[in-house]
Amino acid sequence: MTGCTSPSTGRTVRAVLFDTFGTVVDWRSGVASAVRVFAADRALTLDPEEFADAWRAQYEPAKERVRSGQRPYVSLDTLHRENLDTVLRAHDIDPGSFAPGELTSLAAAWHFLPPWPDSVEGIRQIRRHFIVGPLSSGNTALLVDMAKAAGLPWDVILGSDVSRAYKPTPDAYQKPAALLGLDPGEVMLVAAHNNDLKGARSAGLATAFIARPTEYGPRQATDLTASGDWDLTAESITDLASQLLDGSAAG
Amino acid sequence: MTGCTSPSTGRTVRAVLFDTFGTVVDWRSGVASAVRVFAADRALTLDPEEFADAWRAQYEPAKERVRSGQRPYVSLDTLHRENLDTVLRAHDIDPGSFAPGELTSLAAAWHFLPPWPDSVEGIRQIRRHFIVGPLSSGNTALLVDMAKAAGLPWDVILGSDVSRAYKPTPDAYQKPAALLGLDPGEVMLVAAHNNDLKGARSAGLATAFIARPTEYGPRQATDLTASGDWDLTAESITDLASQLLDGSAAG
Repeated sequence: MTGCTSPSTGRTVRAVLFDTFGTVVDWRSGVASAVRVFAADRALTLDPEEFADAWRAQYEPAKERVRSGQRPYVSLDTLHRENLDTVLRAHDIDPGSFAPGELTSLAAAWHFLPPWPDSVEGIRQIRRHFIVGPLSSGNTALLVDMAKAAGLPWDVILGSDVSRAYKPTPDAYQKPAALLGLDPGEVMLVAAHNNDLKGARSAGLATAFIARPTEYGPRQATDLTASGDWDLTAESITDLASQLLDGSAAG
Repeated sequence: MTGCTSPSTGRTVRAVLFDTFGTVVDWRSGVASAVRVFAADRALTLDPEEFADAWRAQYEPAKERVRSGQRPYVSLDTLHRENLDTVLRAHDIDPGSFAPGELTSLAAAWHFLPPWPDSVEGIRQIRRHFIVGPLSSGNTALLVDMAKAAGLPWDVILGSDVSRAYKPTPDAYQKPAALLGLDPGEVMLVAAHNNDLKGARSAGLATAFIARPTEYGPRQATDLTASGDWDLTAESITDLASQLLDGSAAG
């Protein structure tokens, strides 16, 4: 990538939008911490990390039911809450045994996830020269809570409940671009997931891969490296900032 | 108002959303400055403040054509650009006499308006305890440009192109609340315009009036004081912050 022009789109990048779960925040540690507290308070025997992984494993199938048209768009808050019931049952725990609100509170853990150490500083640097925001499956309320708690300095937050589409459906990438008054090629998606970047490229966006090799824990086997010729590949968001801003100065 | 509970809605306020043009930013000075430069560059004889007022006078009638269903939703950028043609013609200037892009650039003045002196600091203070954002007729791209240029520290920006409705249509107030995961009564509209607050109250929101007695210049005759029993009345956004945060501490 030379200057701020994306080789793949041929356009000057104006907005840098980020996948959030895994790319900006560490969902596994955050959810496992909440599960650990929940289980301890109720004397449940659970492996918090295993439980977090099982909860996350329901994420793509649940979104696929929306993407495929099997059900109309429902927010990620709704999917996380439904998936919690599924995971509890898989652990031989009856969701009906908890007071109303207890499981909703646990599911809110997805609103309050810790950022990776480089996220806040990297986004702050990129913000000086680009519009920055999430481009996430999260709904707007979730992303606002996350930003306030983690100190993510977004310019704008447009959740999946604005586009009413889940990535990698093209609308999920193209509607936020349109609301920013930009062509898709003027928007860069940053993600730790090659499949998300593939969707972004198909939708006409510029792309940047960030390796998050422990997102799924110490035995992660996927997304360890870029599997496509994305516009940029970085080791962290601060590394991405250096690459983008060097380009900005030179371009 | 006691604590953070709105007497009119009986709910605890979680988000404080602001009308922007006139309430947060000084559109008249900003637009007049851009018109002054535009006219000087082209040796046009224009009174910049009078021209700004005439441009703004087209604002409500243009939005009314959308609200009434006479035309489908179009963004405020489109309306500002169309209204510029109208105002030029009213000044005996042919819009067709300018190169493509010149009038679009002038209309972009509405993206880059100066904040009132108290706006940035007041919003920063309120942000510590509440979700803050614009609730404006502006489209998202306009509001993002405005925020970056003026340093407005919003948590979230949902333009009228997200709700696809212009205030005081109820959707214009209720859709942003829903996207924030809030009931209307948990959202406060802050505005320098009594009519906007009337619409917000009808839609179920809490309300705060801020006097901007020179928004329309030195001879302003309307909206000099609150004409309704709004939840709060303040002289500036920093004054509003003091009232909200005193309430927050006490509540």
